[in-house]
Amino acid sequence: MKPEALGESPAAFKTRRRVEFRDTDAAGIVHFSAFFFWMESAEHELLRAAGVDVFHRQQDGGESSWPRVSASCDYRSAVRFGDELEIGVQVAALGRSSVTYRFVFEHAGRLVAEGRVVAVRCLLGPGGRLEPAAIPESIAARLVAAAGGPPGTSG
Amino acid sequence: MKPEALGESPAAFKTRRRVEFRDTDAAGIVHFSAFFFWMESAEHELLRAAGVDVFHRQQDGGESSWPRVSASCDYRSAVRFGDELEIGVQVAALGRSSVTYRFVFEHAGRLVAEGRVVAVRCLLGPGGRLEPAAIPESIAARLVAAAGGPPGTSG
Amino acid sequence: MKPEALGESPAAFKTRRRVEFRDTDAAGIVHFSAFFFWMESAEHELLRAAGVDVFHRQQDGGESSWPRVSASCDYRSAVRFGDELEIGVQVAALGRSSVTYRFVFEHAGRLVAEGRVVAVRCLLGPGGRLEPAAIPESIAARLVAAAGGPPGTSG
Amino acid sequence: MKPEALGESPAAFKTRRRVEFRDTDAAGIVHFSAFFFWMESAEHELLRAAGVDVFHRQQDGGESSWPRVSASCDYRSAVRFGDELEIGVQVAALGRSSVTYRFVFEHAGRLVAEGRVVAVRCLLGPGGRLEPAAIPESIAARLVAAAGGPPGTSG
Repeated sequence: MKPEALGESPAAFKTRRRVEFRDTDAAGIVHFSAFFFWMESAEHELLRAAGVDVFHRQQDGGESSWPRVSASCDYRSAVRFGDELEIGVQVAALGRSSVTYRFVFEHAGRLVAEGRVVAVRCLLGPGGRLEPAAIPESIAARLVAAAGGPPGTSG
Repeated sequence: MKPEALGESPAAFKTRRRVEFRDTDAAGIVHFSAFFFWMESAEHELLRAAGVDVFHRQQDGGESSWPRVSASCDYRSAVRFGDELEIGVQVAALGRSSVTYRFVFEHAGRLVAEGRVVAVRCLLGPGGRLEPAAIPESIAARLVAAAGGPPGTSG
Repeated sequence: MKPEALGESPAAFKTRRRVEFRDTDAAGIVHFSAFFFWMESAEHELLRAAGVDVFHRQQDGGESSWPRVSASCDYRSAVRFGDELEIGVQVAALGRSSVTYRFVFEHAGRLVAEGRVVAVRCLLGPGGRLEPAAIPESIAARLVAAAGGPPGTSG
Repeated sequence: MKPEALGESPAAFKTRRRVEFRDTDAAGIVHFSAFFFWMESAEHELLRAAGVDVFHRQQDGGESSWPRVSASCDYRSAVRFGDELEIGVQVAALGRSSVTYRFVFEHAGRLVAEGRVVAVRCLLGPGGRLEPAAIPESIAARLVAAAGGPPGTSG
């Protein structure tokens, strides 16, 4: 089943964070890897806001999680230690078991970076391996709602 | 000037590294961010092998470096703590001031991940800002040679 | 000059943060290194609350910062992805140019870890090297006040 | 049982690594946290050299590992991107279930940092929790031998 594109609505889940020293490098700016950590944490904030389990490991071995199958980032301008970032998250597409997130990072109204992550809902299968599982309707609906809704309903 | 595609030659710069504990996460596997660190370090090994400065900051403020403008990774299979990775690096395209690297990660003959990074050669400009600078012929030639050469010349 | 011990007052600067996935490891718990990042960020929050520069690099090369000369942590119990931590920071001692911070990490009322960091105030000297510099009275006073005050004045 | 101090013999397990860009920060030098990662990886290299399991998780839930109960580092001089470090590891003390490692970091013959880590051998207990377990004689002997032997026997 092809992912259903949801367009890039102006509405989005928003979060903020400040650049920590651990995220800088010897060039004096934020290391490019930091954006991938920030995307993951923003995704997790969105999941929590939607009331969806992020990562769950049970004592008996059961587990649900959202491993990623791809991640990318385009860097538009530099940010430095102490800068505050505004991060927007959208659900750009929903497949049977996958969700595509789009991230926009801004600082003081200036575009800093844009990223994209494809995550797959997985459950622990009988053989002890994580296996993709369909995203239930209710989870899909809550994700889209928390991320600002599909294009037609936003703004 | 459009980047000149060099194809994806079988020849490539090869390096190896073992998964460290710092690179794992609570899902028991390597965290997706680790591949971006490994790409950067493999790129730096290639630059060193080619005799090209990786990052150079002078006391008087001069600086040359290769900041990245985009990075992406597709994850094919999981690796775990202690696994040894073989990393291949190719120069996939060369522009006036940019170089596109392609990375292939394998473990025990199995494809683990594929990545792509676009880095831009920068020098510190008069206003104290990093500015893109043309890649000199000699550096371009050494990079391509160290990465296994353009398609026509490879094994 | 010997550092002046300030004791371990019950008053302290408090901050909170949630365990992110990047901070976990394959043992399923938080990696021991994460506490050092969290100590640094809590210290920086305290400095900001006190109105003290954390790290400042000027275009003309001037720089002030607080490099650390030692750091330690004792681990009392494990925390996991998603757990919320309460972090207390105290100024345990003040020397001519050094400040010793003590950190206490708790989760849901349970002691998780205790740490200690000694940082030294440095300025960029004439030879282009960071050199220890006396902590001005006003900065010392603001630090102690923001961290809850010396023992005699605390609740 | 009190840990048995082994002194600080001149003999030690030695390893090397080069400072990666990920390990630097905006002050232009190595971030203080990097030494904790390097200590852990040097410890793991020592365990491997001694033929001792570092971290082992079985499909049925069994697990052995060496979580740390304390870690500390004293910083003597700075290192920068690209610098090569020589790391010495000694077994400074052995308790019933704990091992204390001492680490010395040098660059080009200059002392960079000294660290200490106390790790505890743990096995997964019946209640699904990691519990300290006695270090078998054979493992203790191999650890000490790989780390250069007790004081009396070293060069």
